[in-house]
Amino acid sequence: MSGIITLTTDFGLSDHYSGVMKGVILGINPNARIVDLCHQVDAYDVLGAALILAAAYSYFPPRTVHVVVVDPGVGSLRRPIAAEAGPWLFVAPDNGILELVFRRHAPKVWSLRIDEFALKPTSSTFHGRDVFAPAAALLSQGVAPGRIGDPIEDFVRLAIPEPRPVSPKVREGVVLKVDRFGNLITNLPVEDLRSGFVVTVGETQIQTLRPSYAAGAPGEVFLIAGSSGYLEISMNQGSAAEATGVRAGAVVTMADSGVKE
Amino acid sequence: MSGIITLTTDFGLSDHYSGVMKGVILGINPNARIVDLCHQVDAYDVLGAALILAAAYSYFPPRTVHVVVVDPGVGSLRRPIAAEAGPWLFVAPDNGILELVFRRHAPKVWSLRIDEFALKPTSSTFHGRDVFAPAAALLSQGVAPGRIGDPIEDFVRLAIPEPRPVSPKVREGVVLKVDRFGNLITNLPVEDLRSGFVVTVGETQIQTLRPSYAAGAPGEVFLIAGSSGYLEISMNQGSAAEATGVRAGAVVTMADSGVKE
Amino acid sequence: MSGIITLTTDFGLSDHYSGVMKGVILGINPNARIVDLCHQVDAYDVLGAALILAAAYSYFPPRTVHVVVVDPGVGSLRRPIAAEAGPWLFVAPDNGILELVFRRHAPKVWSLRIDEFALKPTSSTFHGRDVFAPAAALLSQGVAPGRIGDPIEDFVRLAIPEPRPVSPKVREGVVLKVDRFGNLITNLPVEDLRSGFVVTVGETQIQTLRPSYAAGAPGEVFLIAGSSGYLEISMNQGSAAEATGVRAGAVVTMADSGVKE
Repeated sequence: MSGIITLTTDFGLSDHYSGVMKGVILGINPNARIVDLCHQVDAYDVLGAALILAAAYSYFPPRTVHVVVVDPGVGSLRRPIAAEAGPWLFVAPDNGILELVFRRHAPKVWSLRIDEFALKPTSSTFHGRDVFAPAAALLSQGVAPGRIGDPIEDFVRLAIPEPRPVSPKVREGVVLKVDRFGNLITNLPVEDLRSGFVVTVGETQIQTLRPSYAAGAPGEVFLIAGSSGYLEISMNQGSAAEATGVRAGAVVTMADSGVKE
Repeated sequence: MSGIITLTTDFGLSDHYSGVMKGVILGINPNARIVDLCHQVDAYDVLGAALILAAAYSYFPPRTVHVVVVDPGVGSLRRPIAAEAGPWLFVAPDNGILELVFRRHAPKVWSLRIDEFALKPTSSTFHGRDVFAPAAALLSQGVAPGRIGDPIEDFVRLAIPEPRPVSPKVREGVVLKVDRFGNLITNLPVEDLRSGFVVTVGETQIQTLRPSYAAGAPGEVFLIAGSSGYLEISMNQGSAAEATGVRAGAVVTMADSGVKE
Repeated sequence: MSGIITLTTDFGLSDHYSGVMKGVILGINPNARIVDLCHQVDAYDVLGAALILAAAYSYFPPRTVHVVVVDPGVGSLRRPIAAEAGPWLFVAPDNGILELVFRRHAPKVWSLRIDEFALKPTSSTFHGRDVFAPAAALLSQGVAPGRIGDPIEDFVRLAIPEPRPVSPKVREGVVLKVDRFGNLITNLPVEDLRSGFVVTVGETQIQTLRPSYAAGAPGEVFLIAGSSGYLEISMNQGSAAEATGVRAGAVVTMADSGVKE
């Protein structure tokens, strides 16, 4: 076991929540090595967490345990799950948050038997502490998921916004997220880009693909092949989000060049 | 020794302060394992740090060294202290920040002899670097607190806002903090809740207790038994702070149902 | 080797970028110990990152690998470099970000041969992941910089704002940064302060030096010998930035007392 446990949550960094999870993990497995992946997922944003995890999990060593806690259903009947997908392990609420991982690797999924390992008394408001942290600590010690969970196949799936054709030469996608630099990360795969194109977002039309941010002219909004495999709308040392006035969820159309929309 | 050192500060995450503390610790004890508990305590908010620490410290393994640096008195005559309380160790300014820990475990407290171990020259503005980090590193290596400090009993106490009766059937408490999700965390203990109640905060009256956030109806502001043992005023996927217009410090009254205030 | 790798970036804490770097490092050196130094450098702020690094690097143990990624030129011809300066190692873009380190220790610098160690395919937008993280992981394992890079001497230098005399008794400096507490950190060295002085910033004149923040009177804006060796303009439990209306980049003059500017 690598003993590495990553944490992705919407707990933010101003409260005790992520710190408490670390304490619980180390209390069970003092040799665990905890890596903060991201704690500033927007509150309740399951898709946002799924995207961050999907961009990061595969770079970690085999047997890393990835814990993802964005959990608006905490305390309801939603199940806590563990999963094995590729050489990695995952612990999360069963709300679709592992969808993008599961699309890439046929997963084995277990519904966790809380009573056998959760902190007691088990709250109905903070399963990050009482359920997910203990489960991750156990997995990081080499405990097999089947020892603390029952195999399931009816885990929850998450609808991921997919590009769709709106006419023979026009596809419509969406801005999945705006990153720290104001890049608009779309759901249009890099490989879908044709040599001539017009991409439209908000009231901005883009016909230029740049190989790097630095290649952009001052003030220019351009397209770039993003590092996670999606097309991004970007600027050189500026915020494309500000320049276009566009936010996550905005529609993006990609037309073959010269085609009227 | 676990070698685990947690950091709770008001240094934020945009400056070098927390990074420097980590460097000093690792420079003395390269095997220390540093855990960020929280660096975004509000500036100078001793009570806020005390609450975060109180919610987290007990989940860590025995001999964990908890360092807490919210230190408006740095460079004045306020003493730096180390403490042993339960199986954990603590390093902090003597300003009451360990109050909630000390109420739960009879502590041993030492006033630290700075000259013997602090970085030289010792600044009067950054004891996190020059005093608290070295002390924590030494304790994490198994150095006994008595080797670097003198026992004291007159450590500073902190007044913690307590609920108080305002009439036979009405108690008055306060919103201790607003968390990342907009939950209003009160100082009313969960066990004080009677079966019939009217809780009032700002202009909002609450008569419903929900077992989980997810059990709340859309738009409903309700009461919940918070994970740290206090009653919280919450919403399901919404911000109770926004809905009620209330902030930390606001008065909360809890009346037996049917009693006119 | 200490196996310690610090990260200083402008990636923020809301995206996957810093988490991905950690995964890449641990994927190559599972024993690396990663320390977040600061991820909230202002976007593209090379000087800001240089200042944070300069305030922190020397406190870490020998052979610590400091990675600094503020990289507006990613994907352009700017070189990735490794450096040895004092007993520490550094990995960064060749954009001057190591300037303050290089001024203190005669460095050895190598231009990294990306093809030999970078992740493949190597993006032109995220060298933190594809180039700098792998290089740091290798150095943390004891790989000599010369094994993955070619020695260079024409590395990029960074202009650091320096105080300058504007008249025989008046020096002019600048506010380098505003910290979390609203302290104005100037580029005026502590040792330049004369016993009688008038410091002017914005419309505020300051003639008082305080030994500590706590020594300041309520509402008073005063000078203090900052912990990084620069004069700071500060308040006791208040924000000098708010009180003076001044931001990073503002001019600061220091005159001998009684001299008219």
